Amino acid sequence: LPNELRRDYILDRYAIIASARMRRPTDFSIPPKVETGEKCPFCVGNEKATPPADLLLIRSDNGITYSKDSEGERTSNWLVRCFPNLYPATEPSAEAPPPSEPLRPLRVAYGYHEIIVESPNHQEHPGQARVEQLQLSLEATLILMRRFVGDVRIRYVQLFRNHRKEAGASLSHTHSQIIALDSIPRNISEELEGFKKHRKTEGDCPYCEIIERERDSPREVFENEDFFVLAPWASISPFELWILPKRHEADILKITRTDVTALAKTLRSTLGAISKLLGDMPYNYGFHTSPKGLDSTDYHWHLEIYPKLSIWAGFELSTGVYINVTPPEVAARSLRESVKDEWSSLC
Amino acid sequence: LPNELRRDYILDRYAIIASARMRRPTDFSIPPKVETGEKCPFCVGNEKATPPADLLLIRSDNGITYSKDSEGERTSNWLVRCFPNLYPATEPSAEAPPPSEPLRPLRVAYGYHEIIVESPNHQEHPGQARVEQLQLSLEATLILMRRFVGDVRIRYVQLFRNHRKEAGASLSHTHSQIIALDSIPRNISEELEGFKKHRKTEGDCPYCEIIERERDSPREVFENEDFFVLAPWASISPFELWILPKRHEADILKITRTDVTALAKTLRSTLGAISKLLGDMPYNYGFHTSPKGLDSTDYHWHLEIYPKLSIWAGFELSTGVYINVTPPEVAARSLRESVKDEWSSLC
Repeated sequence: LPNELRRDYILDRYAIIASARMRRPTDFSIPPKVETGEKCPFCVGNEKATPPADLLLIRSDNGITYSKDSEGERTSNWLVRCFPNLYPATEPSAEAPPPSEPLRPLRVAYGYHEIIVESPNHQEHPGQARVEQLQLSLEATLILMRRFVGDVRIRYVQLFRNHRKEAGASLSHTHSQIIALDSIPRNISEELEGFKKHRKTEGDCPYCEIIERERDSPREVFENEDFFVLAPWASISPFELWILPKRHEADILKITRTDVTALAKTLRSTLGAISKLLGDMPYNYGFHTSPKGLDSTDYHWHLEIYPKLSIWAGFELSTGVYINVTPPEVAARSLRESVKDEWSSLC
Repeated sequence: LPNELRRDYILDRYAIIASARMRRPTDFSIPPKVETGEKCPFCVGNEKATPPADLLLIRSDNGITYSKDSEGERTSNWLVRCFPNLYPATEPSAEAPPPSEPLRPLRVAYGYHEIIVESPNHQEHPGQARVEQLQLSLEATLILMRRFVGDVRIRYVQLFRNHRKEAGASLSHTHSQIIALDSIPRNISEELEGFKKHRKTEGDCPYCEIIERERDSPREVFENEDFFVLAPWASISPFELWILPKRHEADILKITRTDVTALAKTLRSTLGAISKLLGDMPYNYGFHTSPKGLDSTDYHWHLEIYPKLSIWAGFELSTGVYINVTPPEVAARSLRESVKDEWSSLC
């Protein structure tokens, strides 16, 4: 097979799908995780090692209660615990940096940087979590995202997750993070631009069209009533996966409670199937959602999963073109049955 | 210090310089390299393990001779040895892939993918190479780049180098690679666009202006008669470094023989100083040069060095905004004296 140079559905971004140097699922050797046994600051009982929680989900007689720590105190009977990152990338401080100079544009890194401890159980990662627990952590995420969007200066809120040290997680206790920004970040800008261009020429939401066109294609991984999972056409790394809501909606904050449950189950099935296939794979994922104030017709929120199975090296860094040694068709084929099985076991 | 959101000199690309979570040079722990002792296909005597060389630099009575292997034979007395990658990302094949479908643009990955074995000595990496040897490998690189540019279909030729496994090198024998493409890659397109925009508003080559404005700034690392080394303003990773030629020239292929020597010495001093400071750091580097057919006024070639000291995780992958925990000013300060010393020792 000749290597293919594939362009993304809507971005001006290219991947070389290198069949000539193909790596199959069995070619990836993922080293087993080494637990350090150090005292974990995210585990129950060690809450003093972190800032006071600004959101706690706690089980009560009436269901789930929302709460927070007071300054000197720490609550320990939480199900999900959220607090500002001790070493934040962005902060809501008013302190201004020195003024920009020519060629050296600068402003303060304004925003919020939050940690979401997704479970009291150290190892309850999304690929093996109880669905109710995953649902709770998604709910906490949405509450925080709404809170940050409430700041008039905030334009975009990024939820992301780093799984394992190799993918940038400095602690192994299951957690995700939010960084809120006062501008629309580059990748989302580019998606919005590609979206607009596509709608202008084709008249439709490109993501809705991706679902239609990739349904029953060799890149489809899984579909249920609410979500569509695929290995995208121009995947920039092996086993890249997208989870798309089938009902068009720009903003994840408009998601219904039923859809949160379906998202939790879809995510659990997808990540569960990957770990059955490849072991405990290092990965990152992130929500891509509408910046504040956009119309519902201007975007289509989704979740992108970026496995850390290959290294972007000198060629990728210099050119912005990605060599991917596992065609998305191979990734999709090797996951299809397994995601279905995982899903069935949850229903 | 507040974290700063810095925009690149000319790209619409942002880095959060996170002083709040600053990592100093001594905070980086680079694991020592483990040599596997496996038979190295790039070492002298093992040439049969690779395709025939299409460029050999050999010492003769009259200086350096250029040669190549014939199909069944292999030459062993080479100083630099170049051959097509056994698992190429791009190939000069004429075979066409299936036609593009809507939303799924596609063409064949046309081009050349070449390995340059930079020395017969397994470990003679640029940070510790003899200057004459480094000069020879740069000369071989330029000969190949010129050869690929000669193909009418080729638009851009990318030289890059991956140092150590952590930075994507699958073999530890000192080598670099070339991938020639039939289109201008994304990052270079963006630089050309930023270049054009800057020239339109400021009237000048932005890279010439960077040299002027960063001279004696806290980001200057080193300057000699021909080159300027700096830690760029919006560095997207710790210890990112650029080497800029002081004489304006768009196309590295127009470099003079004297400048090749100066480049070899500058590269040797810069990488030598880094390894004195941080140990044998994994890194990538790449030339950024003019696509074929551009005017000399339209670009300014340079070399970008990307150390692999941090992991781009969920935030970077989702947003395209980079968190950098080592301000370029800290990187520059810690290297300045050492690069000067290395340079002096070569002169």
